Amino acid sequence: MTKNATTMPEENKEIHIDAASLLTDLSETARFGGTQKGGICRLALSKEDKQVRDWLSREGEKLLCTVSIDSMGNQFLRYPGLDDSLPPLVMGSHLDTQPTGGKYDGIYGVLAGLAVIRALRANECKTRHAIEVVNWTNEEGARFSPAMISSGVFSGVFDQQAAYKICDRNNVSIKDALEETGYLGPIPCGQHPVRAYFELHIEQGPVLENEKKTIGVVTGVQGMRRYIISIRGQAAHAGTTPMALRRDAMLTAAHLTVLATDIARKHGDEAKATVGEITALPGSSNVVCGDVTMTLDLRHPDDKIVESMEAAFHQQAASVSEITKTQMQIERTWNSPSVQFDEECVSLVRNCAEEMQLTHRDIISGAGHDAAYLARICPTAMIFIPCRDGLSHNEAEHAEPEDIVAGANLLLETILKADACFDLT
Amino acid sequence: MTKNATTMPEENKEIHIDAASLLTDLSETARFGGTQKGGICRLALSKEDKQVRDWLSREGEKLLCTVSIDSMGNQFLRYPGLDDSLPPLVMGSHLDTQPTGGKYDGIYGVLAGLAVIRALRANECKTRHAIEVVNWTNEEGARFSPAMISSGVFSGVFDQQAAYKICDRNNVSIKDALEETGYLGPIPCGQHPVRAYFELHIEQGPVLENEKKTIGVVTGVQGMRRYIISIRGQAAHAGTTPMALRRDAMLTAAHLTVLATDIARKHGDEAKATVGEITALPGSSNVVCGDVTMTLDLRHPDDKIVESMEAAFHQQAASVSEITKTQMQIERTWNSPSVQFDEECVSLVRNCAEEMQLTHRDIISGAGHDAAYLARICPTAMIFIPCRDGLSHNEAEHAEPEDIVAGANLLLETILKADACFDLT
Repeated sequence: MTKNATTMPEENKEIHIDAASLLTDLSETARFGGTQKGGICRLALSKEDKQVRDWLSREGEKLLCTVSIDSMGNQFLRYPGLDDSLPPLVMGSHLDTQPTGGKYDGIYGVLAGLAVIRALRANECKTRHAIEVVNWTNEEGARFSPAMISSGVFSGVFDQQAAYKICDRNNVSIKDALEETGYLGPIPCGQHPVRAYFELHIEQGPVLENEKKTIGVVTGVQGMRRYIISIRGQAAHAGTTPMALRRDAMLTAAHLTVLATDIARKHGDEAKATVGEITALPGSSNVVCGDVTMTLDLRHPDDKIVESMEAAFHQQAASVSEITKTQMQIERTWNSPSVQFDEECVSLVRNCAEEMQLTHRDIISGAGHDAAYLARICPTAMIFIPCRDGLSHNEAEHAEPEDIVAGANLLLETILKADACFDLT
Repeated sequence: MTKNATTMPEENKEIHIDAASLLTDLSETARFGGTQKGGICRLALSKEDKQVRDWLSREGEKLLCTVSIDSMGNQFLRYPGLDDSLPPLVMGSHLDTQPTGGKYDGIYGVLAGLAVIRALRANECKTRHAIEVVNWTNEEGARFSPAMISSGVFSGVFDQQAAYKICDRNNVSIKDALEETGYLGPIPCGQHPVRAYFELHIEQGPVLENEKKTIGVVTGVQGMRRYIISIRGQAAHAGTTPMALRRDAMLTAAHLTVLATDIARKHGDEAKATVGEITALPGSSNVVCGDVTMTLDLRHPDDKIVESMEAAFHQQAASVSEITKTQMQIERTWNSPSVQFDEECVSLVRNCAEEMQLTHRDIISGAGHDAAYLARICPTAMIFIPCRDGLSHNEAEHAEPEDIVAGANLLLETILKADACFDLT
């Protein structure tokens, strides 16, 4: 039931976000957990996270929004619509960061949502739907694992009681941290209605920058699987053990790393394989390595290809460990199937970008996002803007002001179009 | 000037070491620093090391030996000879261990030397030369780096004043530790004369065990070079960074590990290449690795081949880093040229093993030993016995009692032969 996405109330046509306020919000909130290297350390439900949450609530109240908190600490700012019977159009992302995170990942999506509401308010714009901004708790998973835990509870992927018990490294549970910060809200998580969800985000990859596009129209999230590989060889003296008699876990790990890379390359440009972590023991320059633990991360937009990569890796890795006379265990620790975003929502984003003459391309999100869980329960889409060198989860993370403003204006336009064309009776 | 190594005074012919005492000494001294897993943690000049040193001195005194300590804490037990003008024949090794070391590495050489003196004393054997046992301080290098520091000072490789200043992790200097344990002796290190030095040791590798030989006649020590390799890539999101745009330090490290192994294999059975340590940062399963530091250890009995391996590695590693778009630095941190032991001493060992009908083969030591430094200043040889699975620097280190006894008897026989044939006027 594709509707004409170009329909828009005449009175809302000239609305733009206030670029200066948005950029100021980004730099102002970067103080909460700001690092010396220009990044942010703002772990979920930390003192700094509470500071930025309190700030967001105050800003919402200034814009006469209703602020509500649910039982997972998810924070909603509501700009009321003309028809209270319609579920709200929701924009958002998250304000928590990695320990050495940047100023844009997540934050941009929330503050751009706030900028949209500010523009609506400033222009006394009437929308049929309520327009909301949400800040999801603990998206990064840096303090409480797994990532995206609160949008996961919201979407029915995780059980709230189980989530409450998850603890950080200091044995503080999510529930304790919610209570401590005053963000254990009264609304049962997941009961908040959502008509559609739009998440604006930096790409966190180099594709848009490389192709000099301002906008990525995100059509979905790729499938991801993660593994822990344990290799057991035999620690031995590096000076006395002939190569032919070694059972070298490090050499095995090296072959597996090269193998995973080769497998990804054989599965096309969109396939990715990453060995990001390795621990090699005993870890002495003159001892052949006896034990390795390493991670493997496989991704592709097509779950069947992820499956095929996994199978190829399993098969060929077995040959490697046979040749190196080592024992190997491959444990799959995570399996996140690919997500296809809502066609109508994605079309809205694409059409608005086209109308606004923003250079754009369709893109698959390589990273997980709250939107991937929201897509299970409501029409969802995402918008990407470029970030310098594709850098993210890094204090040097950077997005250009003109891209930041363009993305926020596209979000505004998309919301207005959605408001105009959704739920027409 | 090869002398007839079979000449031996008639009266010493039937001497054997006391097997039970040697095995008891090995198990008794293993209490000093003994670990739950059956190994030993006896770092140089620790409380436990002092205990075993004190024990050794007492045992020496029981055998009416003169005990002397030099300025590096090297401990000499002297069984007097008939002709005091002749420099002593010295046997020995070290009593310090790795933090999770075994019961034989070093210890066997010292206690077998003690067993030789015990046999001489028990049989009221007259030797022309004084026969000595030495315990070299800090052979392992586990507490104070580098390894073999006191035999190094003894042999003029290291400067004593510089050695004194070397500190452990708690900032305790060698000199302080010598004073604290009461082992800062009055004799200037290196002024003690040595006619010839014989070191008995476990092989610390699998060759003898694999070939079912009781004795390794050690002809020298292989050349060794060690490197620290630093790889600088670009940390990037594992989900969003296409393979073609990555600068993956982990992948580079994997290729270099495989490369080093291939180079060793191309340089013959005696060539060895080991990557024993790796640190990969930022070290997250969903982040492409930006920085790797890894070690490389290259060894071969022929220094020219070590040189050739190094050159091949340098050249091919440069191609790897070009392909992976990473920057690489290879720093050589250690260069220990190969050592050829004294032909006459080695022949003595070989001939004695042959006469005693012990299965034996010539072997090159893959590990460094005090003997490698002693070889610079006096005729030197080593004797190896097998150790189970080639395991060493490991609490599970094991040598069979019959091999232990056979090796000690060979040491005794070699000493008696050397005494009989050296310095005949």
